[in-house]
Amino acid sequence: MKTKVAIIGAGPSGLLLGQLLAKQGIDNVIIERVSGDYILGRIRAGVLEQGMVDLLREAGVGERMDREGQVHTGVELAFNNKRVKIELEKLTGGSTVMVYGQTEVTRDLMDARSAAGLTTYYESSNVELHDVKTDTPYVTFEHGGERYRLDCDYIAGCDGFHGVSRPTIPASSRKEYERVYPFGWLGVLSDTPPVNDELIYCKTDRGFAMTSMRSATRSRYYLQVPLTDKVEDWSDEAFWTELKNRLPNDVAEKLVTGPSIEKSIAPLRSFVCEPMQYGHLFLVGDAAHIVPPTGAKGLNLAASDVATLYKVLTQVYKEGDKDCISQYSDICLRRVWNGERFSWWMTNMLHDFTGENDLETETHAKFMESELNFYTDNEAGRRVIAMQYVGLPYEDLV
Amino acid sequence: MKTKVAIIGAGPSGLLLGQLLAKQGIDNVIIERVSGDYILGRIRAGVLEQGMVDLLREAGVGERMDREGQVHTGVELAFNNKRVKIELEKLTGGSTVMVYGQTEVTRDLMDARSAAGLTTYYESSNVELHDVKTDTPYVTFEHGGERYRLDCDYIAGCDGFHGVSRPTIPASSRKEYERVYPFGWLGVLSDTPPVNDELIYCKTDRGFAMTSMRSATRSRYYLQVPLTDKVEDWSDEAFWTELKNRLPNDVAEKLVTGPSIEKSIAPLRSFVCEPMQYGHLFLVGDAAHIVPPTGAKGLNLAASDVATLYKVLTQVYKEGDKDCISQYSDICLRRVWNGERFSWWMTNMLHDFTGENDLETETHAKFMESELNFYTDNEAGRRVIAMQYVGLPYEDLV
Repeated sequence: MKTKVAIIGAGPSGLLLGQLLAKQGIDNVIIERVSGDYILGRIRAGVLEQGMVDLLREAGVGERMDREGQVHTGVELAFNNKRVKIELEKLTGGSTVMVYGQTEVTRDLMDARSAAGLTTYYESSNVELHDVKTDTPYVTFEHGGERYRLDCDYIAGCDGFHGVSRPTIPASSRKEYERVYPFGWLGVLSDTPPVNDELIYCKTDRGFAMTSMRSATRSRYYLQVPLTDKVEDWSDEAFWTELKNRLPNDVAEKLVTGPSIEKSIAPLRSFVCEPMQYGHLFLVGDAAHIVPPTGAKGLNLAASDVATLYKVLTQVYKEGDKDCISQYSDICLRRVWNGERFSWWMTNMLHDFTGENDLETETHAKFMESELNFYTDNEAGRRVIAMQYVGLPYEDLV
Repeated sequence: MKTKVAIIGAGPSGLLLGQLLAKQGIDNVIIERVSGDYILGRIRAGVLEQGMVDLLREAGVGERMDREGQVHTGVELAFNNKRVKIELEKLTGGSTVMVYGQTEVTRDLMDARSAAGLTTYYESSNVELHDVKTDTPYVTFEHGGERYRLDCDYIAGCDGFHGVSRPTIPASSRKEYERVYPFGWLGVLSDTPPVNDELIYCKTDRGFAMTSMRSATRSRYYLQVPLTDKVEDWSDEAFWTELKNRLPNDVAEKLVTGPSIEKSIAPLRSFVCEPMQYGHLFLVGDAAHIVPPTGAKGLNLAASDVATLYKVLTQVYKEGDKDCISQYSDICLRRVWNGERFSWWMTNMLHDFTGENDLETETHAKFMESELNFYTDNEAGRRVIAMQYVGLPYEDLV
């Protein structure tokens, strides 16, 4: 088999890249380890930046999002018995975010890929990338009991943090940065009306909590929990009780509870691999970087990587300009580090770190208390939050 | 002996407080461990916020400052071969800073105190504070071979980080926060014209450097150095060579060098003691908090403490309202923590921490690189720097 671009991973990054490339007539094949249903069963992010919204529209998959998604013009921070609204639209001169689940984005992209008759090999095992430093890379994998070889010009590694793409780059040719946090997020999805029109990020003495939603009838709530907690430790009742304890009183009394339809604990991690390109292999999204969920940047950083790789590959195929390839990593990493920093900052500012109970941690907690007061007390501070929350602009190739 | 307010320490905080109280007819006596000349020999800060400038004028000691001080409308950050101007006046709607040495402020205050015939006991030893939790506190000390007892209503502890005031508060009644940095600042004072009209904070791969001044003919320069360095390790020539290496090229080529008239290494520390009031004892300035010098907040935070204590004591004596005493600590600490956070942030963002060479430090350095780019690249970010650099507003009593 032969294609122009082999895409490893059928998550939203791989699917979106494939769709965009196909619209430019650039042939691509996706190879995915698990099934489509398995991917759609994973509950992930739900807040899309303007840039990603525009990119989905450009890929021709924005129709249902524009119909069913919720445009949010603000977001709230709650702490010390007060609620501060960050007026995203007003503070940024018109930018907003779209609340639309990653699962729905993925479904729309899968449907579009099917409709376009593009090839995806789900449930592929033993995926290996070969000769990525040469002009003739190829991918081998097993699928339905058969062994395949896919020759290609370029490989897009969209296979996430645990995928094969990043480890294909020799350890001596990459540098990894990491910060692991001493807590996780316990998330519950429920078919109950959201407690508030906008997302609320809550800092409390009992730890962080967050109210979010996927639609007018489906809520998503989170609690900061110790890493030692197991999902089994948390009954639905215990979850709702603790959530009420952490919400501002006027919000808590409006909370509608119901059975959880998904419940899981995710660890928090900041991670970046540099560079994001090695020969003919490009790392995209979680394959190269992970952010803690505070600030909703994970999926959005993946989308901006896709936007950049799409521009690079279009220039390669339409204009025969291979020099632009070397721009990929730097352009992505500038935006990635901004998103990493923002997510790290929001995490530091809103979570309780007193589990690490030493002088340095206590002093840092006081800095963060002052940080939250300062940045919410004045318009320049709120604008700094808003600009980053809606997402920094995408950078063009030079 | 008897007075209303016993002031421990004849640094700028103690002197300024004494002057302000005297103008309200509130009798005060200052007790100081060293001589006036020794105090004037210590080279310290040189950037005064608007609030402190106004307070010095209110105290009647602003005349020479207004004549000889330099009003600065901006400050520069240099990194990655670029210079970014933070337009303080423009970004804050009119606020500026005054460059006028702490030594000069102190001299003006000493002169005013002498002229007013107010009592100061220099070179006092064995200073001890007694019964500070009662309505009848007193201070004992030795001076000129005599033993003295000074009865008073209140004691203002303006005696710095190593003074007796803070340790007078039982350890069980105070909580201390601290962050020590793995480097120091080597400072040189020289009678050479400043290399630039405005202060420049320089981040480089060789470490932080700063260009500052005290007047049109006197410069003050700093280099980040390892804590293990000794002043004797640094000849004037070595200092100037290293400084040139760390300045932007167009600045370095204008540098005029000359013999140092002072050279010293200061460690960097963030420190806060809570609360700042205990019975009839008030902690003021360095006695309660230390900041790293990055951002020039040390003297200015002391001045805002003085402003608050002045308001409190005026209300106590003019209106007989002792309830307002309990506001002192909270009002001071809100502003102190803002200054602490800003100084810590500027220090983190501009210094090289790679001496601590581990994954967490390297990851943090990448966050800080992104931070510096983000905050200088957009106006909201620059405004956040400017607002804090010129100083947050003083808070009134409620």
